[in-house]
Amino acid sequence: MNTHTIRKITLNCDIGESFGAYKMGEDELIMPHIDCANIACGFHASDPLTMTQTVALAAQHQVKIGAHPSYPDLVGFGRRHMDCSEQEIIALIMYQVGALNGIAARYGESVAYVKPHGALYNDMLRDSEIFKAVCKAVSYLQTQQRQPLPLMVMATPQNSEWQALASNYDVYLWFEGFADRRYNHKGRLVSRKQSGSVLTEEADVLEQANRFARREPIIDKDGNERMISIDSLCVHGDNPSAVETVSKIRELLHSIPE
Amino acid sequence: MNTHTIRKITLNCDIGESFGAYKMGEDELIMPHIDCANIACGFHASDPLTMTQTVALAAQHQVKIGAHPSYPDLVGFGRRHMDCSEQEIIALIMYQVGALNGIAARYGESVAYVKPHGALYNDMLRDSEIFKAVCKAVSYLQTQQRQPLPLMVMATPQNSEWQALASNYDVYLWFEGFADRRYNHKGRLVSRKQSGSVLTEEADVLEQANRFARREPIIDKDGNERMISIDSLCVHGDNPSAVETVSKIRELLHSIPE
Amino acid sequence: MNTHTIRKITLNCDIGESFGAYKMGEDELIMPHIDCANIACGFHASDPLTMTQTVALAAQHQVKIGAHPSYPDLVGFGRRHMDCSEQEIIALIMYQVGALNGIAARYGESVAYVKPHGALYNDMLRDSEIFKAVCKAVSYLQTQQRQPLPLMVMATPQNSEWQALASNYDVYLWFEGFADRRYNHKGRLVSRKQSGSVLTEEADVLEQANRFARREPIIDKDGNERMISIDSLCVHGDNPSAVETVSKIRELLHSIPE
Amino acid sequence: MNTHTIRKITLNCDIGESFGAYKMGEDELIMPHIDCANIACGFHASDPLTMTQTVALAAQHQVKIGAHPSYPDLVGFGRRHMDCSEQEIIALIMYQVGALNGIAARYGESVAYVKPHGALYNDMLRDSEIFKAVCKAVSYLQTQQRQPLPLMVMATPQNSEWQALASNYDVYLWFEGFADRRYNHKGRLVSRKQSGSVLTEEADVLEQANRFARREPIIDKDGNERMISIDSLCVHGDNPSAVETVSKIRELLHSIPE
Repeated sequence: MNTHTIRKITLNCDIGESFGAYKMGEDELIMPHIDCANIACGFHASDPLTMTQTVALAAQHQVKIGAHPSYPDLVGFGRRHMDCSEQEIIALIMYQVGALNGIAARYGESVAYVKPHGALYNDMLRDSEIFKAVCKAVSYLQTQQRQPLPLMVMATPQNSEWQALASNYDVYLWFEGFADRRYNHKGRLVSRKQSGSVLTEEADVLEQANRFARREPIIDKDGNERMISIDSLCVHGDNPSAVETVSKIRELLHSIPE
Repeated sequence: MNTHTIRKITLNCDIGESFGAYKMGEDELIMPHIDCANIACGFHASDPLTMTQTVALAAQHQVKIGAHPSYPDLVGFGRRHMDCSEQEIIALIMYQVGALNGIAARYGESVAYVKPHGALYNDMLRDSEIFKAVCKAVSYLQTQQRQPLPLMVMATPQNSEWQALASNYDVYLWFEGFADRRYNHKGRLVSRKQSGSVLTEEADVLEQANRFARREPIIDKDGNERMISIDSLCVHGDNPSAVETVSKIRELLHSIPE
Repeated sequence: MNTHTIRKITLNCDIGESFGAYKMGEDELIMPHIDCANIACGFHASDPLTMTQTVALAAQHQVKIGAHPSYPDLVGFGRRHMDCSEQEIIALIMYQVGALNGIAARYGESVAYVKPHGALYNDMLRDSEIFKAVCKAVSYLQTQQRQPLPLMVMATPQNSEWQALASNYDVYLWFEGFADRRYNHKGRLVSRKQSGSVLTEEADVLEQANRFARREPIIDKDGNERMISIDSLCVHGDNPSAVETVSKIRELLHSIPE
Repeated sequence: MNTHTIRKITLNCDIGESFGAYKMGEDELIMPHIDCANIACGFHASDPLTMTQTVALAAQHQVKIGAHPSYPDLVGFGRRHMDCSEQEIIALIMYQVGALNGIAARYGESVAYVKPHGALYNDMLRDSEIFKAVCKAVSYLQTQQRQPLPLMVMATPQNSEWQALASNYDVYLWFEGFADRRYNHKGRLVSRKQSGSVLTEEADVLEQANRFARREPIIDKDGNERMISIDSLCVHGDNPSAVETVSKIRELLHSIPE
């Protein structure tokens, strides 16, 4: 069933994070290079009109529309943990995914997958009760849509355990890796608070992307090989230089034989 | 096609207007008596968790789930006109209807119709450009849902003209009347700023409801008969006494032979 | 300087928690009975117009105007912990206290003290870094106002340690007790999650209020005497019955000789 | 009393319009060149922490702190008209000015003047009832502050009539002109919807600024001289090129003998 070893990885990017008069990200530059657009749903960023424009851009480039739901925290960009109950989390995910799906109707599209944002993403990985709440929400939504709605989560060496947990809710996971982040000996991201957490040299980013793409072990911060299987690579479109790196990753992926 | 003359009218009610810790309306009392629940979508009232609870209550009583979208104005309860562009209006309706539809997935339900709220409702009736924007939004949404999504608007002597306008977008209208509001000689509601705009005697409310239900002319504020055809009667569940009146209207409807 | 032992305690109440069309609390009933009004500032409850009306009511009854700042969480009523930085906490307190002070100008009043709300109140007692951030905010504000701006916090057997900490910022504390909450052997409130945390019998509430007022030890949940010194007693105006209890506490306070 | 003819004009700029993670404007570049900072107060832009940083920057450059209150419309950047009552307008201005004043306490500063933003600014000029509501709010606030709080409004040939109206509330007006906007034969701004409404050539902008500064008539869009007296010139810091123009205007002002 799981065809990871032969399927090409996709590129996903957080996108559509402008808000009213505020512009964020180089959406028009990055969209042509990605496969999966994690689109903000109005709780940490974006608004109905911006969402409409983002979906239009995704549709134009045949990019999959992903919902990127968040805690309700515009001023904190969804990066601050909030103590929400299980029922609140289920409800806020269903609300946001549904909202994006409504917007997507404008262009004959619908939401293809879900990737929680920011603090909610981190909390989900830290607290299995929150992860289960997210799975429940996704499960209800895919039943309504009558098609699978994969949930994108962070790839770790424990992918199969996470998938087992999600399978209890009939939810299929997409595991994502990060080309520009250093991993530790546990196969987790080195905290941004530590030095060396982000790969700043483009060559290093491309090297790590290449290893992920070829299903090879990456090199962790201690210099050891570390096998982490991914379905998708998270890239950034914050500025023109970031976009250029992504276009090189895209080329690199094309060069890999199927 | 139009079977007004023999179809029984429905009862609709604005509902699910609580917000976080704030309780509004007697939702549990009124829900058993109505057919169509106009459920707030978080822009003038409600929040994801409240919407979930409201959908649960509607599902329990087999009441149709209607989206009740609004301008983004929680503090003004959606009652204040805001200058929004056509594109903003389309987007905010699609966002809110989609959001409620997402929430409805929790109980295997989906949105069955749309009724704009407050200032947006009034603006739509006053400005045909806004009405057309609403129709466009509904049109896109029903295409996605693959089933008609009727739009509820105020019944006037000009129903057929409104329906003709909506038909350009393949949108079907449901016309609603008000049992407790006095109509003027043009078949429009007497402004709340004028005395006598609201029927305060229960007997008068029941009499007007009865006339609407039997497809008979109502009596306008000048004492003349005025024919206004409706599909649905808007009722209120603000307090226990209002609910009691609704239960009497419900009885009255049951007594009408099909 | 500290005249606790002879000064009569005040009654304080969270108030002005309505929001737009949403009414909460029996403000008009409770205001005549209290000394200090903890007025919501728009982040967990209230809005500029409601704040104006609340200040008007306080001014009419010569009740001190207290700012009741909160995390920015209307939908959660400020009851959910949010991870905010020290700088964010300082800023959000100064913003809210300033806002209420601006509103108070309408009636020639100004903010007389500060009492953080909900999760922020709890976090301040749990985390001394947050407590210090609150003190800094209050310190800056009282310098601008050129008059002391006492900070209201929960009374515990460690009052003097808290005051020592606050004194580093020249902030004077008002310690508050709760007439209707059971205390544990550490002199802290029994968690609401435990049974018996709230005194439900009016006689018990009055008894505890009387002990607080007479500077006598209260009886903790284990039946032991526990001395907790307070400057103010927190009461509630949620409903007419709660108000009645407060009027009896008020009477009781009047009967205590100075 | 009015010393317009000899007093140098000031430069004012809308500033502090970032919001959370969203950056807007070149605040650090423009602040050294201006006299008066119209600081957003959280209703159309900004948040408590951004306001703190903006006040810090203004204090560092000894720039006057002006409150820039708006309708509550973050997503619309305060540019959309909202139907607010007189009482709502008074309250929202007092709230926002107070909030900025609270924030200003951090740096020993206080609000020195008020300039409404966006749709509220336009509505105030269009509807004298709204103008009066603004004056009332300012009047209450300056009484509390015990110092005048000038209100900045658009300069027109009817300055004295506006001042007469404001004087009923003891409010002193500062009239502002626009260096980069074309005026019509009535001395009002040419609508942005018309071509030629904005001066795009720097030379034209400097020429108009020079005329304003020297108390000479400007040239309206029909080529006629039009006398408009101003106290302040509104400039923009949207981008580095705009800042450069402002620095030239600043030089020009310095070259005018007192």
